[in-house]
Order: sequence, then C-alpha cells, then structure tokens
Amino acid sequence: MGEKVKLEEISAADFFYRNRSLAGFDNPVRATYTIIRELVENSLDAVELAGRSPKVLIVMREEREGGEESLPWYRIRVADNGIGMDPEEIPLAFGRVFVSSKYRLIQSRGTFGLGGTMALLYGQITTNMPFKITSAREGEPAYELTMMIDIRKNEPIILDRKIKGVSRRSFTIVESTFEGNYPRAKRKIIDYLQQTAIVVPYISIAFMDPEGHLYIFPRSTEKIPPRPKEALFHPKGVDLELLQRLLSSTRTRSLESFLMTHFQRVGKKTASEVLKIAGLPPDKRPSDLKDEDIRRLYEALRSYKEFLPPDPSVLSPLGEELFESGIKKELQPEFVKAIQRPPSVYEAHPFIVEVAIAYGGLIKPTGDIQLYRYANKIPLLYDASSDVSYQVIKKIDWSIYGIKNPEDEPIAFFIHIVSTKVPFKTVGKEFIANVPEVAREIELGLRGCARELRIYLGRKRRKEMLLKRYELFRMYYELISWTLEEIIGERPPIENLIEKIKGSAGDEDERE
Amino acid sequence: MGEKVKLEEISAADFFYRNRSLAGFDNPVRATYTIIRELVENSLDAVELAGRSPKVLIVMREEREGGEESLPWYRIRVADNGIGMDPEEIPLAFGRVFVSSKYRLIQSRGTFGLGGTMALLYGQITTNMPFKITSAREGEPAYELTMMIDIRKNEPIILDRKIKGVSRRSFTIVESTFEGNYPRAKRKIIDYLQQTAIVVPYISIAFMDPEGHLYIFPRSTEKIPPRPKEALFHPKGVDLELLQRLLSSTRTRSLESFLMTHFQRVGKKTASEVLKIAGLPPDKRPSDLKDEDIRRLYEALRSYKEFLPPDPSVLSPLGEELFESGIKKELQPEFVKAIQRPPSVYEAHPFIVEVAIAYGGLIKPTGDIQLYRYANKIPLLYDASSDVSYQVIKKIDWSIYGIKNPEDEPIAFFIHIVSTKVPFKTVGKEFIANVPEVAREIELGLRGCARELRIYLGRKRRKEMLLKRYELFRMYYELISWTLEEIIGERPPIENLIEKIKGSAGDEDERE
Repeated sequence: MGEKVKLEEISAADFFYRNRSLAGFDNPVRATYTIIRELVENSLDAVELAGRSPKVLIVMREEREGGEESLPWYRIRVADNGIGMDPEEIPLAFGRVFVSSKYRLIQSRGTFGLGGTMALLYGQITTNMPFKITSAREGEPAYELTMMIDIRKNEPIILDRKIKGVSRRSFTIVESTFEGNYPRAKRKIIDYLQQTAIVVPYISIAFMDPEGHLYIFPRSTEKIPPRPKEALFHPKGVDLELLQRLLSSTRTRSLESFLMTHFQRVGKKTASEVLKIAGLPPDKRPSDLKDEDIRRLYEALRSYKEFLPPDPSVLSPLGEELFESGIKKELQPEFVKAIQRPPSVYEAHPFIVEVAIAYGGLIKPTGDIQLYRYANKIPLLYDASSDVSYQVIKKIDWSIYGIKNPEDEPIAFFIHIVSTKVPFKTVGKEFIANVPEVAREIELGLRGCARELRIYLGRKRRKEMLLKRYELFRMYYELISWTLEEIIGERPPIENLIEKIKGSAGDEDERE
Repeated sequence: MGEKVKLEEISAADFFYRNRSLAGFDNPVRATYTIIRELVENSLDAVELAGRSPKVLIVMREEREGGEESLPWYRIRVADNGIGMDPEEIPLAFGRVFVSSKYRLIQSRGTFGLGGTMALLYGQITTNMPFKITSAREGEPAYELTMMIDIRKNEPIILDRKIKGVSRRSFTIVESTFEGNYPRAKRKIIDYLQQTAIVVPYISIAFMDPEGHLYIFPRSTEKIPPRPKEALFHPKGVDLELLQRLLSSTRTRSLESFLMTHFQRVGKKTASEVLKIAGLPPDKRPSDLKDEDIRRLYEALRSYKEFLPPDPSVLSPLGEELFESGIKKELQPEFVKAIQRPPSVYEAHPFIVEVAIAYGGLIKPTGDIQLYRYANKIPLLYDASSDVSYQVIKKIDWSIYGIKNPEDEPIAFFIHIVSTKVPFKTVGKEFIANVPEVAREIELGLRGCARELRIYLGRKRRKEMLLKRYELFRMYYELISWTLEEIIGERPPIENLIEKIKGSAGDEDERE
C-alpha cells in the first residue's frame, strides 16, 4: 500500500528555474521579450533615482547563428546612467532570486525582486555562458564582475572581478548571452519600447537590434516628475508576522516611540490611543512583549478607526500633462484627454490611477478594444483581456458618450496605475487583478475623459452636420440662381448669403 | 546623486508571505477558500496513491467569534486515509515552501510545492497559533507534531512531538487555526467540493461547515482509475542546467548507460546515435565531461529527431465513462458526451485532454458560458475567462452544431487536462495558459462532442416538430369530424388514423 515519493527542498532560484513560465519565460520568443523587458526595467528604476538627462542604451547582436534545429545565441548589453552600484551590492542584486527592500515600501518597476536575475539565469541555462556586470558610483572606481548563478543554492558565483579607474559618472552595464528568437519577438519588443516612451517621456532610450536597425526614442521633455520616495508601513497594512519582526528588530525603547517610528501617520496622540485599546502601557519596552501582548497590539491596530489614509506623497505618477504629451507624440490623435484621479487606498497600499482617452489621428479602428496599460511606468503587453482595465471598459455603456462600440471606432484607452504595491496577478507582471478599489478609480477616470470626448465629438459632429446643411443650402441656392439666371438673364447676388451661412456654421463651433 | 536602497535577501516562504496574493491568498474570503482547497488537494493526492475506499473528511468550526472590526477565527481539520507520512517527512512537507520530487515527473495536484505550507502559514500570520499534523503509515506508530514556520528562514519549528500507538491504517490529519470569512467564501467552497465530486467520483468527501451543515459527496463508483506513475524526463525536455545536475549526480559509469538510465524512451541504439552526433565516445565516464562536452551533448539531444514521444502511460486521466457518470450524478442532463483525446505533447511534457458537453436537465441558460474546468483532477474556479478553454469555446462557431449562442442555451462544457506539468499561468493554479498544442486538443474534443450533440438536438427537434405536426393534424381532423358529425349525425372513425400518424412520429425517432 502506498509508495514513497522522494522529496527534496529546492531554492528560490531553483523554483523559478523549474517554473520559469510563471515569470514570463514560457518559450524562446517570450523569453527574448522578457529578458529585454526585465533588464530595461532595472535600468529605468536606476535612472529614475538618479535624475539628470537619464538614458538607457540597448545593444543586441547575434553571437552564434541558429541552425535547422537550433536557435541563435544573442549577446545583449544594457547600459544606463542611473545611480550605479557599490561592488558588494552587485552579486546580491543580480546573482540571487528574491531580494527585497527592507521594512520599507517604494514605488518601483521591480516588484518581486527576481526579474533581472531570472533574465540572466535564462541566459545561463540556455548557453552555459557567464554574464557580466560593470558598474560605478560617481567619483568611485568602476567594478567589472563576471558571474554565474548557483541555481541549487540560489547564490552568485563570482568568476572574475576587475577594478577599473575612477568613474566621473554613475552607470551600470549588464551583459548576457542567451538562446532566443528575435525575429518573432521583435514586434512585441518594439511595441514595448514605444509604449515605454509614452510613459517615461523624460528618459531617452536607444535600441540597436540584431538586424542592424537602430530605434531611438529621444526624451520629449525636460520635465522630470518627482522621484518615488520610500515609505513606512501603514498601521492598517500590518499582520502579526510583520509586527513581530518590527518588534524584534526595533531600537526604540517604548511602545509609544515604536509605533511613531515604524509606521506612517502615527503621532503621539494616535499611538497613545492605540495602546489604550490594547491595554498596554506606552512606556513598555517592545522587547518585553509576550505573544498575547503582541496579539492585543495587532488587534488594536486593526480596530482603531482614526488612522489617516496612507501617504500618497511617496508615489510618483506621471501627471496629466506628461501623459497627454507622450500620447500626442506617439499617436498624433485629434483629441486626447488625461485625468489623474485623487490618491486612493487598497489593503493599506496607496495608489493613484491615471487615465487617458485618445481619438483619431494614427489610431484606426481594429475590431478590438485598443488598450494601453501601464503600471509603475512600465507598459503591460500580454494578457490584456484578463486585466481589470479591460473588464471595466467592457462594462461601460459607451453609447452615452457618443461612441457606439469602441471596437469599431478610432479610440484608444490608456490606464496607468502607480502604487507601492501594484496588485499584479502573476510574477511575470502581465496584468492587474480586479481589485474593487482600483476598478472604481479606473471607471471614474474613464467616465471623466469620456465626458470630454462626448463634448468634442458632439461639437465635431454638429460642425459636420452644419457643413452638410450648408452644402445643401448652397446647392439649393445654386440651383435657384441658375434658374433665375435663365429667366432674368443675370446671376442673382447670393454669394454673400452663402458666405453668411458658412460663417454661422463656424461660429456655432466657437459658441460651445 | 542617487540614494541607496537597503536590500535584504528573503527566503522562499518570506517571498510568498509578502506576495501571498500570487498564491491565491488575496483577502480573507479568498484565503478561506484557498486554505480548504490546498489542504483538500494534499489529501486527494495522498488517497489517490493509496487506493482502497479513499475518503477525505473536513471539519471546520468557529474557534473565536468575529467582532465589528475583526473577523472570526476558524479551526480546520482535514483527515484522509491516504498513504500517510513518515515522521521525518512531515516537517519537510508542511513546514517549508518549495519542496519538489527529485529528478522525476509525476501527475499530481500539488504543482508548485507550496500550497499546503502556504495554507498553514496564512493561519500562523493571522492568529499566531501553531498547526498540528498527525500521521501514520499502516502498521507503524502514529506521530503528532505541533509546529510553526520560521518564515524568514523558511524552516519548520517543532513545538511538540508525540508518539502514539501503532496504527492499523495509514492516515494524515492536518489541523490549523486561521482568521477568515466563511459566510462569503461558502458558495465557492461548496462549488469546489461539488465539482471535485464530478472529477473524482471514486473518492468520498464529507464536509461539516462552521454553520453546522453537513455536506456529503459519497463516491458513486467502485472503479478507480490507475494511479499516476513517476516518470523520467524526456530527452527533449532537458536544458543545460538539468543535464549538468544529472551528470554530476549519476551513478552510471558510461555516457551510454547514463542516457539509458536517466531518460525515458532512450534505448541502446538511440543512445549511441545521440553520442555519435555529439562526437562523444559511449564509454566515456559522465564525470569526465568538460563544459564544452556537456554543451555538445545538450545540442545533440536537441537536434536528434528520432526520439519517441513522451510516455503517456504515466498519466492518469479520468476516462470517458467516469467523466460522464460524474456529470450525470451532479447535473442530471438530458444529454451528455465525454471524449478522451489521444495523448499529446507540449515542451516535452505529455498531456491528455478530456472534454465533455452536457445539455438540459439541471443546466439552465445563464447568459454566460457555463464552463467547468479541471486540471489533474482538481476543479479550477477563478478567472475562467483567462483560461485557454474559455478562449477556445468563444472561438468556435456553435451555430453549425445547432447551438445559436451557448450563453443562452442550457449547455455546459467540461474540460479536464492531465499532465506531468499542467501549464498553469499563476502559482494560485487558477487558469491554464494558451499553449497551442493544448488549445488544439480542446478544440478537437469539443467539436467531437458537439457533433454528437447536433445529432441529438436534430433528433429532438425533429421529434418536437413531428409532434407539433401531429397536433395540427389532430385538431384539423377533430374539426372536420365535428363538422361531419353535425351533417351526417355521427362521428367518423378517424381515431385510428390519428394513432397511425402519432406512431410514425415515434418511429422517426427510432430510425435515426
């Protein structure tokens, strides 16, 4: 009866190596796209923190030709002028899966702490070649590390380490060799870079592809939005485990100061009220708490109703102006309207939704919803129909905004959510879960833009109607004038009349 | 310029603790559902391997009432008469995230090696209470372990360990306390158990819920499908990393015997052909291979075209008969047809798709596609519209099968995929990726069932039409007969004629 199944514990790197489709490495085509995406996103995070004329350069070339049964190898090199890294940081950041910022929340593209490492790991498992990281901080020596990953231990292996001269600027260069399929991934990659240019119009991006084409997306604005800040946890977002960790690592010497130090939006008054509910003295030492005390403190935090909402000032949205200018640059629509919704909260995480609708120009009807999705300033290209935005758009009755069916009109939707924790459904960051609070903000934003679109379309259609009516009048008068001309022998002076009508059609527009 | 972000490495348990929504623990309602699901699935895997009148018993009761701002605590207890566990296995299986079977593939419900542990971990972080595992193998002592998980280290902490008497049967009991929301999760939980009963009609399941209701799903058949077997890797599914691991751990002393021992479907002839392509002597010792040799071996495995397809005999599908009987029991349809497709392969993993269509009975039109999805004998309840099955159903033109719009008819679809690696898109195992090979099998299966449905519906509609025609004749004759009766004073003998027509309507049915 019953047979034993041999079990082994596996490391985090091993888990994602075995289940790499979870992280977006389903097949060579998808992997080619995901490698570029993950390395570019690391760079974008780095340049966003550094400011000053940020740029990302990507060079990809064929390293070894593919054959009948084998795929080509590519060498990819992503360089940025971001914050740079200290030499001891590099192995941790690129040689391990699961690295996270400590006790803090920050809006960043790297959500799960594994994308960049997975990109390098994929190169290693398909080619067995090491990867190379070169980085420096301004005024410090540059380091060049040649590395591989010990997948079973989830540990970096440093094969070579060179120290170079002092660098005048901060930068990071990542180089890796992988087996992929560029021809089939190309369209998604270019789409991805194009959409990135919409959402980070203040960063220059250049891409030299393996076919020798050069794609340049120069920044279209000098304006850089404020960079994201690190935030403390909100007291409503804490669970027992986190509370215990904070209590065991704090340097504060009283519960009152503990609460004020480690949580956002907790002042002296709030702290003392919470401790009163918990039945704990404010001057009790955090290290003296027993399990039962911790549970009481946790429950007091949960039940206290007077906390201020999470601080949205740590978020860095794009802003309506930049959003619209990015869209205008790429799609040249005849109408565009962006709305930034006020900050909102889900499960103690602040978030801001930015929404835009564009109409006409390079946008043509496709028979499908044209939806551009962004999260923390990265475009999301896969699995659109599973995304909360798609579901919200499908739910809205667009006819009340003068749009019969958005699938058959030259209309495009743009949704951008920024948060210290974007509610992605997958590790591959393809789409956003249907969180009611987020869905509500998207809907309100869309309806706001749609109201403006209705006014624009109404005006446009009225103008078209008036022009049509004017044409009718004109032909009618022409006909009469010919007839009269035949009878009275001369053309009656109706041109003035026509001009007058035409003028009033134009005026109509101005009067709105 | 630039500010440092403090980084820390985190354990696998910590990663899923921080990102628990990835594993299906989005909120208390969803978590309540997922905890039951994960513990039940562990038990189903265990009873499936043991055979003999398998059963799973679930008892859930309120441990502590909820308040205005707090949710109730529940104590859940899941017991099975499965294969049982050795005492040293228990901490590994329940106290750690990421445990996998070694160098083998097997069709099982637990795909990612973390669901059960995550369920217990969720209890711990919401209540700070330990969990308890009691288990025995037949004829050996039972062990009772009280445990918690050190999330930061991803390690079990054993708080208490009791040895009980020798057990006559193998069994496992898991007990845990968690904060949840049963009233709102109830419908999904009952749905889940009901659908499980369809797909494992040979396992008895009983559930006593916190409201005191008892749900029993007795097994409806004695027939147990063959249990899944462990499989070796197929040579086409190997990458460089795996090849290196196998080479470094093998006990074989020649490359020829290495290939024959560690891969399925590789005999002496195939092995020697592969080694010839790689340019490696068959008697070379695996431990003597250099990096370049390994790469050549890998490429030879990739380019060799004569491998047999992966062995589907390791899979344990349900079978058409059991599938239909499960559906009949639960939905009492007027028509049901199940088809098991022949084994197929994606990325070197064998899979089998089973498809069924049911019509009428308890199935009523709902205005939406009624889709029941299963993978390795577990029902999938969330995110149906993202699933490959949904997309395939949407794509088919159902009118050619006599179904105008499946959303408005009493029709239900059932899709079951079994594989040594189900291509789930998320760690929470909610839905299956759109893998072309899988989509194709689903479509062929559905079309096969739909052809039978068309014949059934055609017959049914013809019968309805004939009966309608008969009614028309009947009323016509009645009318004539009354008129004649008035004229000739007596009723003409037309009853025989009517019976004759009615008879032929019935015959029509038989002649099909």
